Amino acid sequence: MKLGRISRDGIDGPEARLVAVLPEQGRAVDLRTAERLRLVGRGATPEAGTRLAAATFPGSMTSAIGAGPAFLEAAHEALTRCGDDASLDLEGLTWLPAVDPPVMRDCMAFKEHLTNAAARLGQEVHPIAYELPAYYKASQSSLIGHEQVVPWPAYTNWMDYELELGFVIGRAGRNLTPEQAGAHLFGVTIYNDFSARDIQGREMQLNLGPAKGKDFATAVGPWITTVDELDLADLDMRARVNGEEWSHGNAGSIWWSPAELIAYVSWGENLQPGDLIGSGTVGRGCGLELGRRLQPGDVVELEVAGIGVLRNRLAQPEREGREPTPRPR
Amino acid sequence: MKLGRISRDGIDGPEARLVAVLPEQGRAVDLRTAERLRLVGRGATPEAGTRLAAATFPGSMTSAIGAGPAFLEAAHEALTRCGDDASLDLEGLTWLPAVDPPVMRDCMAFKEHLTNAAARLGQEVHPIAYELPAYYKASQSSLIGHEQVVPWPAYTNWMDYELELGFVIGRAGRNLTPEQAGAHLFGVTIYNDFSARDIQGREMQLNLGPAKGKDFATAVGPWITTVDELDLADLDMRARVNGEEWSHGNAGSIWWSPAELIAYVSWGENLQPGDLIGSGTVGRGCGLELGRRLQPGDVVELEVAGIGVLRNRLAQPEREGREPTPRPR
Repeated sequence: MKLGRISRDGIDGPEARLVAVLPEQGRAVDLRTAERLRLVGRGATPEAGTRLAAATFPGSMTSAIGAGPAFLEAAHEALTRCGDDASLDLEGLTWLPAVDPPVMRDCMAFKEHLTNAAARLGQEVHPIAYELPAYYKASQSSLIGHEQVVPWPAYTNWMDYELELGFVIGRAGRNLTPEQAGAHLFGVTIYNDFSARDIQGREMQLNLGPAKGKDFATAVGPWITTVDELDLADLDMRARVNGEEWSHGNAGSIWWSPAELIAYVSWGENLQPGDLIGSGTVGRGCGLELGRRLQPGDVVELEVAGIGVLRNRLAQPEREGREPTPRPR
Repeated sequence: MKLGRISRDGIDGPEARLVAVLPEQGRAVDLRTAERLRLVGRGATPEAGTRLAAATFPGSMTSAIGAGPAFLEAAHEALTRCGDDASLDLEGLTWLPAVDPPVMRDCMAFKEHLTNAAARLGQEVHPIAYELPAYYKASQSSLIGHEQVVPWPAYTNWMDYELELGFVIGRAGRNLTPEQAGAHLFGVTIYNDFSARDIQGREMQLNLGPAKGKDFATAVGPWITTVDELDLADLDMRARVNGEEWSHGNAGSIWWSPAELIAYVSWGENLQPGDLIGSGTVGRGCGLELGRRLQPGDVVELEVAGIGVLRNRLAQPEREGREPTPRPR
């Protein structure tokens, strides 16, 4: 199943709604509406149908996934019984980030990206990268969805994309082995880890990882495809800028498997439903590796087989905000 | 006002409740209860009183702060009118993390800590540290409250504490100047950034910042003191281990002010109510700077004047979880 989040206009303003997406039919089914209709069709009062449907299909993907297997079971039931009556044209929908993760981590799970990044600095891949599937923690404050505009902060002149997979966690866990961890994967989405390379290069010398270099925007979507529909060993991955293909890779080239990443995250930590783990960039999956830069107004499309196309346009640069006042030496 | 979160047993299990804390009286007032009593006293039905009180005082501090000035106004009103009837003995309460932040960042705002850390590596403070108040993003998955046990992950033999302030954000903002940013500070809590120095030293060589070295536990509490009650230029800060004082500093020695930190975070990013910004370690505020290490079972107390004492005991080491299988060279 393909599950996404859209914004619809309600009486009190925009409301987040979960949808099941049927791309081949050009339709998306509002799951709360479908569930309400199903319940009312079985004799529920409209009030009870609305209340129960809202509990099963909240606006938060994390809250929905938190219900466990009951969530997907209910989605299948709603879709089968009343999908037609609750369906919307895919065109013209307002997409939200497919997930609203409690914690968001981004790994470096493709070796070719590490090799290329190290080569640019005249180095080899660090020995510790062979021992630990390292990650940084991303920020949920600037998550954007499919077709949402990418803010261009005033502090950067060097904008880049990163072509990644986003692994969405289905259930809680701690200290999992890789053999156990695979079952904790709910689905996969497309993850564009937009990067401001100039400030990223400065701040990362302070050894705390990327912050301003990444946190202005991360695009996640257009939706999640559940794991049962995907062969993670073979997913074609492409990036296009203004229609021109810049990157082409495959999920099968991953160095640390999704199960290994999930197990590592859970080591001494609480893995939570809705957590999002970025794979890191597939080999040659960003402009940095290709010697190319994005410009304001560029349209970046990331396509992953079995999921879809995540498309975002870059805004014009902001002028607001202020460079910190340097401390005296 | 001092505001915290506790867990109380409800019919369906533990419930998070917001409390106003009166340390000098040894009491904490359950704000939802006080508000319900106040409303019923003014003629609300019990059902309406319960419903309205739950909306004003949810279990989430972030949700409560999101109401804007109405939250503190309602807390004052509830406390003044019905505080006595809703009060609990401070002894024996089960504390939760004082905040449940959407995004959690941790800075390096005290210069002495940077100087000491650099000196240990035979270096000087990096020139870029004079230009940017760098931060890493912490993880909300392992937040713990006052008196909660600190898990000791299997992967570390070198445990440390860090004596920090936690700045809690009161309202949204973007691209703020330092002159504007001060008004976005809601209150201050105590922040113990527990650290596993061995794995931290390994993973940080990969340039993504700390992850396993920090994310197993961060203690936040015992509560938040609102800014109107604090002089941020002079707050005595102490750390004790098993009753012995290890660290002593003052908030006034901060190198980047809270307003500067908040402004920097908001540069090209959406600051959100409930966000938590750690100050970084005060000078000599961790065992690393003192050549000392924590042991299983140790009790760490962080005390900050005007706030209180945040006390946590270290667990025995976990045995679960698995070291990643190294990739072949």
